[in-house]
Amino acid sequence: MAGCVFCAISAGEAPASLVHEDEVALACMDVHPINEGHVLVVPREHAASLAELDPEAGAHVFRVAQRVAGGLRESGLRCEGVNLFLADGEAAGQDVFHVHLHVLPRFEGDNLLIKPREGFGRPDREALDDLAARLRL
Amino acid sequence: MAGCVFCAISAGEAPASLVHEDEVALACMDVHPINEGHVLVVPREHAASLAELDPEAGAHVFRVAQRVAGGLRESGLRCEGVNLFLADGEAAGQDVFHVHLHVLPRFEGDNLLIKPREGFGRPDREALDDLAARLRL
Repeated sequence: MAGCVFCAISAGEAPASLVHEDEVALACMDVHPINEGHVLVVPREHAASLAELDPEAGAHVFRVAQRVAGGLRESGLRCEGVNLFLADGEAAGQDVFHVHLHVLPRFEGDNLLIKPREGFGRPDREALDDLAARLRL
Repeated sequence: MAGCVFCAISAGEAPASLVHEDEVALACMDVHPINEGHVLVVPREHAASLAELDPEAGAHVFRVAQRVAGGLRESGLRCEGVNLFLADGEAAGQDVFHVHLHVLPRFEGDNLLIKPREGFGRPDREALDDLAARLRL
């Protein structure tokens, strides 16, 4: 899509430090890394959101991310753990509206905090069953 | 695996509020939700880490998570966005050592904070190219 940085990278029209590319997806270094070694996995076909994403492209993005995670652990970079993270929608922190999965190397004391909503207690089984019924696929 | 809560759920031997199950994966409500509607997608076969996970099971976990995300947006629960999140390793915040992908409904003002490492600046292209070369698949 015109004006989309990930479409431009996919087309070879914008610079990127590529870790992987195949017909369906590419992986490149994030230019705003949270930790050293922060990689993005991006489906080539433009999809602004999960709702627009071809499920098979999504499945492949996960395959690539799993391989990148393995590579990070073997890279010699400081990587004692890995987070996979995807933001779908502005309320979830999405900033570039072409789906992308973050692969984040983690280490003890890196100060990356994921802070839960305050005051949200543990629901009982009945409440969970009610929610499950509403969400059943 | 004996003593693993997700293996017990998969075998029907521990309670769970199921959203989905198929031959490869299941989805259930998290009993320690961060937001209302917090779902976990779990491969049935025990894998403590991404390194142990069958890549095709991983790809399927993502397919299920994408469908759960769509369901959350249509559920009537407050869901203006969705995060997918996976913690691999203790340093990444993993607490249950059977791979699971979180599907988190998000909304404006929910106060879920993801706080980057302080003082980690934007690297230049040369630094990113060097990292990409180390991580190339």
